[in-house]
Amino acid sequence: MRMGVLGTGPVGRAIATRLTELGHDVTMGARDAANPKAAGWAAERGARAGSFADAVDGAELVVNATAATGSLAAFEAAGGNAAMAGKVLLDVSNPIDWSTGELRLTVPDNDSMAERLQRTLPDAQVVKSLNTVNASVMVHPELVPGAHTMFISGDHATAKGTVLRLLRDFGWPGDALLDLGGITAARGQEHYIVLWVGLMQAGGGDLAFNVKVVRG
Amino acid sequence: MRMGVLGTGPVGRAIATRLTELGHDVTMGARDAANPKAAGWAAERGARAGSFADAVDGAELVVNATAATGSLAAFEAAGGNAAMAGKVLLDVSNPIDWSTGELRLTVPDNDSMAERLQRTLPDAQVVKSLNTVNASVMVHPELVPGAHTMFISGDHATAKGTVLRLLRDFGWPGDALLDLGGITAARGQEHYIVLWVGLMQAGGGDLAFNVKVVRG
Repeated sequence: MRMGVLGTGPVGRAIATRLTELGHDVTMGARDAANPKAAGWAAERGARAGSFADAVDGAELVVNATAATGSLAAFEAAGGNAAMAGKVLLDVSNPIDWSTGELRLTVPDNDSMAERLQRTLPDAQVVKSLNTVNASVMVHPELVPGAHTMFISGDHATAKGTVLRLLRDFGWPGDALLDLGGITAARGQEHYIVLWVGLMQAGGGDLAFNVKVVRG
Repeated sequence: MRMGVLGTGPVGRAIATRLTELGHDVTMGARDAANPKAAGWAAERGARAGSFADAVDGAELVVNATAATGSLAAFEAAGGNAAMAGKVLLDVSNPIDWSTGELRLTVPDNDSMAERLQRTLPDAQVVKSLNTVNASVMVHPELVPGAHTMFISGDHATAKGTVLRLLRDFGWPGDALLDLGGITAARGQEHYIVLWVGLMQAGGGDLAFNVKVVRG
């Protein structure tokens, strides 16, 4: 499957690498088409690197792994709604800002980055997932032992089905995947980052953790 | 142990009832000392009801189970910092507001209700816990099968020790209790409510659930 990954940070690299391991045709996109991190990754993986627009062009699925403060600009640079029409947009971002020295959310509590992307790109099919774990756990859930949960939300059933298959290919067991419903449920997935940071700090910085939903 | 519970809603009643079952001397406090719900509960349980000030007076531990929009006013009515000096304040509230028809948080993301209480009542010893589960699960964790996690935070070690003993008396196993550190960690505990509501809705309204933290 042809896929674009927007973002060259640890999350973008982890997902893009895993997608190439699974045999997908991946282009890593950056603001600058000559971004050396993207070019280095592409050379190492035998994949492609280019601009945000290059990564979106021809892709069936696009992963948003940009810093959430730059996500809307990245998709505008990629060609906006016309370029994303009919494509699955897997949003794994967390709308956070550490510039003041403490964790702040950049989206108010009656909104989410995923909803902003869906409103800005109405013909894309936005699915929110993976943002509730560290980059390594996203693509290697076996790093956390036993059963633990991955959330998914979105308004488009077919797109969610595509992402669910991808998550299973990453190693997530089917019974670990919890569909929260429409894209407004991304508010919960994104607000959880505040607790995630607390859990990370309480665990001395260890990143290999997750939560399991337990029901009576 | 002499305890006050501020709040007459489902959370206040569940906690106050459980405390009386455990043999504690409990006063349920309300804005109006003649609150019929509090008086009815007290008559049924052989306990006491009164004003917020009555509930705080003489108590070693005070539970904040008021709606978070009224919590600061409740403690002001109870006598403020002087009345709470040296007492453990177990804050189980969630700073939420449904008045617009959708879930909003009433405290910004670089603050929490627990921190507001600690700043307003500097001589109290605020501990945040229990707010991440439904009222019934708070006091009967066995309603959710198997292992699941309860968070606790606060700046005062002795007060946290008191609350940890109380949680064990409620039925929380020792290895279920996760100390997140100082009271600023309450931000994570309180932001989690957005995901909790999503999980509740995804589960068709079932309230007997929780999350378990799983580490590698």
